[in-house]
Amino acid sequence: MDKIKQVAIVGGVHGNEFSGIYLVKQFQAEPERCRRSSFTTETVWANPAAYAANKRYLHSDLNRQFKNVDLANPELTDYEQSRAKVLNAQLGPKGAARTDLLIDLHNTTSNMGACLILTQAGPFYNKMAAYVKMNMPDAIISRDEDHFAAEEHALMCTLGRYGVLVEVGPQPQSVLRQDVLDLMQTMVQHILDFVELYNQDNLPALPKKTEAFRYLHSIKLPMNAAGERIGMVHKNVQDRDYQPINPGDPIFTLFDGTEVLYKGEHVVYPTFINEAAYYDNNLAMSLNEKVIIELE
Amino acid sequence: MDKIKQVAIVGGVHGNEFSGIYLVKQFQAEPERCRRSSFTTETVWANPAAYAANKRYLHSDLNRQFKNVDLANPELTDYEQSRAKVLNAQLGPKGAARTDLLIDLHNTTSNMGACLILTQAGPFYNKMAAYVKMNMPDAIISRDEDHFAAEEHALMCTLGRYGVLVEVGPQPQSVLRQDVLDLMQTMVQHILDFVELYNQDNLPALPKKTEAFRYLHSIKLPMNAAGERIGMVHKNVQDRDYQPINPGDPIFTLFDGTEVLYKGEHVVYPTFINEAAYYDNNLAMSLNEKVIIELE
Repeated sequence: MDKIKQVAIVGGVHGNEFSGIYLVKQFQAEPERCRRSSFTTETVWANPAAYAANKRYLHSDLNRQFKNVDLANPELTDYEQSRAKVLNAQLGPKGAARTDLLIDLHNTTSNMGACLILTQAGPFYNKMAAYVKMNMPDAIISRDEDHFAAEEHALMCTLGRYGVLVEVGPQPQSVLRQDVLDLMQTMVQHILDFVELYNQDNLPALPKKTEAFRYLHSIKLPMNAAGERIGMVHKNVQDRDYQPINPGDPIFTLFDGTEVLYKGEHVVYPTFINEAAYYDNNLAMSLNEKVIIELE
Repeated sequence: MDKIKQVAIVGGVHGNEFSGIYLVKQFQAEPERCRRSSFTTETVWANPAAYAANKRYLHSDLNRQFKNVDLANPELTDYEQSRAKVLNAQLGPKGAARTDLLIDLHNTTSNMGACLILTQAGPFYNKMAAYVKMNMPDAIISRDEDHFAAEEHALMCTLGRYGVLVEVGPQPQSVLRQDVLDLMQTMVQHILDFVELYNQDNLPALPKKTEAFRYLHSIKLPMNAAGERIGMVHKNVQDRDYQPINPGDPIFTLFDGTEVLYKGEHVVYPTFINEAAYYDNNLAMSLNEKVIIELE
C-alpha cells in the first residue's frame, strides 16, 4: 500500500510572501507542531536571499525552474536556477524523489482565502481534497493537473513524488497578516492530519463529491500596440475571486472610462485577480471552470 | 491677498505605489481634468526609475530627501538624493519655491481610505481640510505639522510654498485598484476645486470644526535582542486604522501565541497599520490622537 514517509514543508520560494517563511520558522521553533507518528517532516526555507532583498526573486522566478529539462541544463546558472538545482538535489531528485509529499507555501495579493492547488491527478490528491474541504469548508480546491505532465511542470511542488501548493490571501507583498498566517497554518495542519490517517488506512468517510475549480487560461490587462497598459481590472471584479463572470459582464475599465465586457461564451470563475506578482507579464487574472472531484 | 498661481501634482515618488503614477498619466492624457481658471497645473512623475525596477526606491527613500541641509549637501549623491536635487530645482527651490502648492500622491497597504495629510499649519490648510471633509465626509484629515519646521521636514511636499500628501489605501504594492484610483482622483478634484474657490475668494460656508488625527509617534513590531521579529500586529487591530486602541487592548500576537497588550495611558488611534514599506524599520503602526481643526 502507498505510504508517505517523508514530507517537506517549503516556505519562502518567493521572498516577499511572508506567511510561508514565518510558518516554517514557527515549525522550526516548535517541531512538534508539524510532527506526526507515521512520517518524518522537514522544513525548508527555499530562497532566503530573495527575502533579504525584499523581492519575489533575485534573477528569475524560482517557482518556474523545475522542469526536468531545465534542472538538467548546466547553462541555466542564475541565482534561482542554481537554487532549483540545489533544492532538487536536497529534496528530489525529481522523478525519483526521496520526498514523498512536498507542501509549498505561497501568498497572493488576491482575495483567494485558503486555496489548495493540485498540480497532478490521482486518488491520493482526490482524497486529500475531499478531506481538506470537509474539515475546512471555506477552503478552495484548485485543479491544474491536466495541462502538463509532471516532468514538464515548472513548479517547485512537482519535485516531490506528490506535491501541492497552499496559496493564501489576500496579503500584500512584504507584509505578515495574522489572519492569513492562521489560515495557512490551519490548512497545513489538515493536510498533515490527512497524511497521517492515509498512512494508517484510517481515513473517515469522505464526501463522494467535492467542488473544485479547474484552470482554463489567463487573460491579460488591456494594452495598446506599444505594450502599455491602457486599463485595469473592473471594480466589480476586484476581490471577487471564484465569483462567476458571465458573458457580457464588465471585466476591465480603460483609463478613458470605457468599460470592457467579457466576451467568452460560458460562465467562468476568476482567480489571482489583480495579483501583484503577475504584472510583469500583464496578467489580469486566471479563468477557471467549476468541476466536481468524485471519489469512487 | 494670498493667491495660488502654480500647482504641481506629483505621482510616483515611490515606484511601487501605482495610483499616483496612473493618475498623473491620466492628467497628462487629458489635461483639462486638472485645469482650473485661476492657476496653472503641472504634473510630475518623480521617480520613473523606481517604477521600472518595481521598487519603492533604488537607493534611498525619495520622500525622505527634502531637508534643506540635505538638498544643500553635495556629498549625498545616490539616485534618489540626486532626484531630490533635480526636483528641487524644477519645482522649488524649497523656501522660495515657484510652486505655490505641491500635491504629492501616495498609496498605503493599510486600510486608511482617502487621507489628506497636512505637514504644516495655518489657515490655508485649515480651510482646505474643512472643505475636503465637507465634500468627502469619509475622507480622513491627518495632521503632522507641529513636529518639524518646514526646512527640517524631509518630505517632498514641503518643497512647495504649500504642500500636502494624498495617501490612499488599502492597495498592495505594485497593484492598481480601480476603487483606490477613484478615491485618489476624487480627493485631488476636491483640492483643486478648493484652490479655485480660495483664489476667487468664493469659498462656501465651511464647518467651524473638522475632526482630524494628530500624529504622536510610531511603535515597533516586537523584536528580540538579536533584532529579529518575534510577533506581528494583532488580528483585532489589523485593518482598523483610525479605530480606538484603549489601554489594555491586545495590540500584538507573538509567534508563540502570547498576546501583547497596549500599555499606554490614553486612547490612541492607529494609522499605517502593518504598512509594507515600513517593515525595513520594523514599524508596526503610527499612533495618533483625535483633534479638532477650528476655523475662526
